[in-house]
Amino acid sequence: MLHVITPEEVYQVIQSSFQMIPDTETVALEYAYHRTLAKPVRSESDEPPFSRSTVDGYALRASDTFGSSVSLPAVLEVTGQISMGIPADTAVSEDSCMRIPTGGALPGGADCVVMQEYTEDFKDGTIGVTKPAAPGENIIFKGDDIRCGQVVLPAGKKLLAQDIGLLASLGIAHVSVRRRPVAGIISTGDELVPEDTIPSPGQIRDINSKMLGAICTSEGCQVKYYGIVKDQLDLLQDALSSALNECDIILISGGSSVGEKDNTVKAISSFGEILFHGIAMRPGKPTLLGCASGKPVFGLPGHPQAAFFTAKLYVCAMLRQLQGSISEPVHVPAVLSHAVSANDGRELYMPVRFSEKEDRSQDASGLSTVIPLHGKSGLIKNLSLADGYICIPRNREGYAAGEMIDVVLF
Amino acid sequence: MLHVITPEEVYQVIQSSFQMIPDTETVALEYAYHRTLAKPVRSESDEPPFSRSTVDGYALRASDTFGSSVSLPAVLEVTGQISMGIPADTAVSEDSCMRIPTGGALPGGADCVVMQEYTEDFKDGTIGVTKPAAPGENIIFKGDDIRCGQVVLPAGKKLLAQDIGLLASLGIAHVSVRRRPVAGIISTGDELVPEDTIPSPGQIRDINSKMLGAICTSEGCQVKYYGIVKDQLDLLQDALSSALNECDIILISGGSSVGEKDNTVKAISSFGEILFHGIAMRPGKPTLLGCASGKPVFGLPGHPQAAFFTAKLYVCAMLRQLQGSISEPVHVPAVLSHAVSANDGRELYMPVRFSEKEDRSQDASGLSTVIPLHGKSGLIKNLSLADGYICIPRNREGYAAGEMIDVVLF
Repeated sequence: MLHVITPEEVYQVIQSSFQMIPDTETVALEYAYHRTLAKPVRSESDEPPFSRSTVDGYALRASDTFGSSVSLPAVLEVTGQISMGIPADTAVSEDSCMRIPTGGALPGGADCVVMQEYTEDFKDGTIGVTKPAAPGENIIFKGDDIRCGQVVLPAGKKLLAQDIGLLASLGIAHVSVRRRPVAGIISTGDELVPEDTIPSPGQIRDINSKMLGAICTSEGCQVKYYGIVKDQLDLLQDALSSALNECDIILISGGSSVGEKDNTVKAISSFGEILFHGIAMRPGKPTLLGCASGKPVFGLPGHPQAAFFTAKLYVCAMLRQLQGSISEPVHVPAVLSHAVSANDGRELYMPVRFSEKEDRSQDASGLSTVIPLHGKSGLIKNLSLADGYICIPRNREGYAAGEMIDVVLF
Repeated sequence: MLHVITPEEVYQVIQSSFQMIPDTETVALEYAYHRTLAKPVRSESDEPPFSRSTVDGYALRASDTFGSSVSLPAVLEVTGQISMGIPADTAVSEDSCMRIPTGGALPGGADCVVMQEYTEDFKDGTIGVTKPAAPGENIIFKGDDIRCGQVVLPAGKKLLAQDIGLLASLGIAHVSVRRRPVAGIISTGDELVPEDTIPSPGQIRDINSKMLGAICTSEGCQVKYYGIVKDQLDLLQDALSSALNECDIILISGGSSVGEKDNTVKAISSFGEILFHGIAMRPGKPTLLGCASGKPVFGLPGHPQAAFFTAKLYVCAMLRQLQGSISEPVHVPAVLSHAVSANDGRELYMPVRFSEKEDRSQDASGLSTVIPLHGKSGLIKNLSLADGYICIPRNREGYAAGEMIDVVLF
């Protein structure tokens, strides 16, 4: 029998037993998308570095327009024209203005910009302003966006397009990011054949290798495949030894249930120690984690759906830990279309699908409806149909149809 | 003045004016993550290909266990042992059973598997079954997952880890995917300097190039950068000409508002036609789309937030169209923390942030709360802080605090 621990305890073991990989590398912004920031980024200057107009129009002093209207425009002298990229060499004084394009630097003296639409060109070097303007109108002030010294991106952030834009705005063309972890994938089982092989009776294709590899890819890893290893301790030890030399984390799928051919525990033990074996969840109970040569080695169940959920939950958490990542899975509330039951004291994980997007059903609260995709642990098709998953806690017997539930999106 | 069209009309133009890029390529499963499937995938066999056990135990006939209990176990002869990967050579007959591991092929004659925990080994070649079993118990039947001929993945699906597992289970080791579109990025503006340059007064750094590049990367593109082009028609024509030769889609940012230096319209017109110029939205009104040499050329606003939203909405939609992708942005309902107003007859797009995750505030309906991040169109920091965005339709003056609103996640 396994001595199972709870999912919460698994996360504690991950956090307390493994450190962030210290290596960083510097990449140009065009290669920074989805990389994990190694250090917090501080601004070394005000952004924008000068006050500028957000519209095409005239820079002027707002007080000169107070009381103006279409029938009684404020008449101002046009003393010049701001060109893009060039600061004004003169200031705006009382009852005068300068023509300014969108993005142009605000000239001294001016405190607002009036849109061209609210002016009339008298063609004699003056314009009429037909509407009072407020100080600050149509201006982005120096430092409005970012103050010098401010932390603008925290360490551990997975960089999105908008973060890359922010880095560019700060003049940071190269950024320090975490090295990609290298994940080694080993499948074990006498019954397994490679995915391009026609299985003989009694054989099944290795589904887990490439699926687990893709999960590691999604968390920013480079992936190395060590193929299918027969249920033989020395062969598994050889594969694990190679993987420990070349990788930061190793996933062994299959061979983790208590059975005659269970060599995963022995193989890991020959290079280190087992941290836990067995999690109070379904599917995925016979999952184990070891530490070998200081590196995490997961023993994941052979059943694809069980391997999928344990990898999504714990391998991904470990990969975020190794990268010092602060990103988290996205949760959304939804309403269950059908009841789901769970009754064995283990957390139950189940894939769910949003009801048809065309006819996006929402209950009175505006929540979307999700359909639980029941299925036996070995079935992989349900995962492919799913938009996310739900978890039924140990202390619940299930959820009724119409109940609200938290969905973790894929 | 611009003749603006509505966002819905923009999507119609995109759909009606551009075709999917016909090129496909074949990739091994380990490189298939996040690629877009070119053709529907049908199963050529039943999966699993044989009925198999989901537990460690004994394969037997359920009817032999009816009426059994701990005090009166059903006694069965153990006639053999199923090994992983090897089909049984004998069938199970009445009052007999075979030992079977998780994943083992169900022997003929048996219609269920009893878990080891509900048996007692009498050490004389017989076992006692202490609980009645139902036919089908602990078995995944042949074809339970997938029937031969069934479409299991539709064309246009962006492949996730679970889809790759599904392909492996079908024996598909290489898959036909859409070629990655090549996106060309051009920034225009006399005031722009590269992101690693310290701007002189009146200059600003080019934020949009790398940000737009990352958005294209997120939609599966290869990206080519054509640098910063001065506001001069012949220079822009040269850059566009190179990009049209080398790319499938071109984004020109800056230079799309109606102003003296607006060369984008002229440059596109010299290679093709303008399809629209101006969208009834804020930020992003001066966006334009042309078709040059049969390829889409966007003119995006220079303001980073405007460029970001128009790219997220329309460039991404175009890239999905070019790849025949059926993936869609993820929407979730949430409650607004503060009122937002909009009053100029244009759709308003605004970044929002979920209130602190630790103290994840939810209203009575269970919805999360989002905080609108007000800010002027030029500000990029708000986008980096945001978890998603909201849209206030043209026909609404805004939303009140506490109202439910649809959030599109980043």
